[in-house]
Amino acid sequence: MISDKISNSIKNSSMIRAMFEEGAKLKKIYGDDKVYDFSLGNPDPEPPAEVKAALRELANSEELKMHSYMNNAGYPEVREALAEKINSETGLKLGSDNVVMTVGAGGALNVVLKTLLNPGEEVIVFAPYFVEYNSYIDNHGGRLKVIDTDYKTFLPDTELLTKSITSNTKAVLINTPNNPTGVVYSKKILTEIANVLEKKSKEYGHTIYIISDEPYRKLAYDVEVPNILTIYRNAIMIDCFSKSLSLPGERMGYIAANPEADDIASLMGGLIYCNRILGFVNAPALFQKVVAKAINSSVDINIYKERRDLLYNSLINFGYECVKPDGAFYLFPKALLADDVEFKNRALKHNLLIVPGSGFGRPGYFRLAYCCSLETIKASLPAFKALAEEFK
Amino acid sequence: MISDKISNSIKNSSMIRAMFEEGAKLKKIYGDDKVYDFSLGNPDPEPPAEVKAALRELANSEELKMHSYMNNAGYPEVREALAEKINSETGLKLGSDNVVMTVGAGGALNVVLKTLLNPGEEVIVFAPYFVEYNSYIDNHGGRLKVIDTDYKTFLPDTELLTKSITSNTKAVLINTPNNPTGVVYSKKILTEIANVLEKKSKEYGHTIYIISDEPYRKLAYDVEVPNILTIYRNAIMIDCFSKSLSLPGERMGYIAANPEADDIASLMGGLIYCNRILGFVNAPALFQKVVAKAINSSVDINIYKERRDLLYNSLINFGYECVKPDGAFYLFPKALLADDVEFKNRALKHNLLIVPGSGFGRPGYFRLAYCCSLETIKASLPAFKALAEEFK
Repeated sequence: MISDKISNSIKNSSMIRAMFEEGAKLKKIYGDDKVYDFSLGNPDPEPPAEVKAALRELANSEELKMHSYMNNAGYPEVREALAEKINSETGLKLGSDNVVMTVGAGGALNVVLKTLLNPGEEVIVFAPYFVEYNSYIDNHGGRLKVIDTDYKTFLPDTELLTKSITSNTKAVLINTPNNPTGVVYSKKILTEIANVLEKKSKEYGHTIYIISDEPYRKLAYDVEVPNILTIYRNAIMIDCFSKSLSLPGERMGYIAANPEADDIASLMGGLIYCNRILGFVNAPALFQKVVAKAINSSVDINIYKERRDLLYNSLINFGYECVKPDGAFYLFPKALLADDVEFKNRALKHNLLIVPGSGFGRPGYFRLAYCCSLETIKASLPAFKALAEEFK
Repeated sequence: MISDKISNSIKNSSMIRAMFEEGAKLKKIYGDDKVYDFSLGNPDPEPPAEVKAALRELANSEELKMHSYMNNAGYPEVREALAEKINSETGLKLGSDNVVMTVGAGGALNVVLKTLLNPGEEVIVFAPYFVEYNSYIDNHGGRLKVIDTDYKTFLPDTELLTKSITSNTKAVLINTPNNPTGVVYSKKILTEIANVLEKKSKEYGHTIYIISDEPYRKLAYDVEVPNILTIYRNAIMIDCFSKSLSLPGERMGYIAANPEADDIASLMGGLIYCNRILGFVNAPALFQKVVAKAINSSVDINIYKERRDLLYNSLINFGYECVKPDGAFYLFPKALLADDVEFKNRALKHNLLIVPGSGFGRPGYFRLAYCCSLETIKASLPAFKALAEEFK
């Protein structure tokens, strides 16, 4: 009785549900600490002390109207604080009117896509990629075009990008640090992408946007995450506090654009309008103020770095092939079987919960989310070793 | 460069922006207290003490993982609490799995419409109606069919409804207590609507849903708001805490369905899936717990009742025609000119900010939102009187 498309999508997503159920079953049999769950990207560190203090301060204050509607774009002072932070890091000149507060990065992506897309316009995405992009683009009548990254580096292939752009291309959606690979795009590669789009925008006589989804931008270990707004004038930056402040359940994110972008007033007007008509209305009130008060804080990224180092080094030692990730909290090693779904099943026999790469548009690989304690990782290592030995 | 549809929609909505700007200009000239702003439905009472206490308690607690992701449907214990509350009021037998927590009622409506609608399917709405329904239905490829209510009562005309349903009708979207009229649908009228839909569902061989948007259900003054789930098995109830707990900025709402509804598992599965893929992901974590702790509290509705009585009685005395509203915080009197936009301009000359009925699909009327102090209402009365006298 519900929509045919939704009904079919649910049937197709039942594989993932089945996986979780299998995991739950294993945990019941063997105990939580004997099942090594690398399937979920749910940040486990607590929010920084500054966040907890800001929340307490606001909750205990006598300030009135703290939970009222505000402008659909969010509180002006919060947007101003974010604009100033970006400016201080980049030398750009964003104003509060170049920032829109959103219901997380997922909300932000839907707002941006709704604002930009005419029916049938294409959005290019580099595989492997976060599979929700399929739905987000389809929600607003767009067409997803997936192109492969380089097999050795998981970095975009700009020649392939150049060939893939058509008159129908509206945007290129990038995600750095990347889910699922953990790869961070350098200034060099971003500049190459920007150059391609600059040229193609001219050739086709319309703006081709970069939509840069950066929920993991604070989680970079050995490298810097360049600010896309300094590299491409028509970039739209999406950031959130789910990972950097460990607040995923509170749904707080934002969109920022360069004041020099084409027709910036209508872009920002569109974003604010779409934030409203998609039913978000505004980002949750109280947590806008919380993140503004804790704007310079971050979770301790060494927690994640230590896990990455242990897990990455161990896997390499056991004979897995894996691009060393510079950020996010994922590893994306090569599966030891061409059939990554079957490989996931084999891993399950060792009480290892992993996600097949085909769930990210790149079969033959698997994703590990290290949102679990160092102890769990340590305890899991013999299982990874035994799994590798099966295929020697 | 943005989507043509969004670009055009923004141009069309510029009338409302112009109105706000005119209002702001007037306030600058005459002072805030000399401009009587009845344009915005932004609840002004503070949240009840129980809400503030719950927020303080949670913010000060040492509970871990309070801001993590949870099930996309929301915390099971919060959904359980809401299900039990509905059960205790109705004798129904909802479980936690018949409730989905949402980003406000606006988010809930989008989730429901995305779940139900195949391309081109119709949703029937009774005029006057909340104009965002246009966007919400269009977002998901549906077609809005507007039919008039009775001119004397603003109640649905079930004969007209019967004639308007086609094989393409997926749902009837009702809103009680109503924005903009303040009218509350009685059990009798709801039962009549249910009977029509029961018959038509059989005739066409598919379920026709009632989607009942009830953000004002706690704001009813002299009458009871019946629970739609007790009246129609295939009703989907949408409620939120924006008005009942004065928390509009926090975006907290929920969807509830009757466990006896057709194919309930796939309906609930669809709602949860759509909550995720529309980018809401989950309702904000902390405020789910806040509303569960304050589940039996409510703003003091006598604040609104007193305002309604003063404003309604005064307008009637001055010669305005108006259906006496039983709920919400709106009056919807007849404009004293056929051209309600021109009437809005004439009101502006008396420093009265009102919204033309054409903004709600019913020209010739105007909406007053009494989300302002009793003092403002008292101070505005001479202006309403003078305005009426112009047309005598």
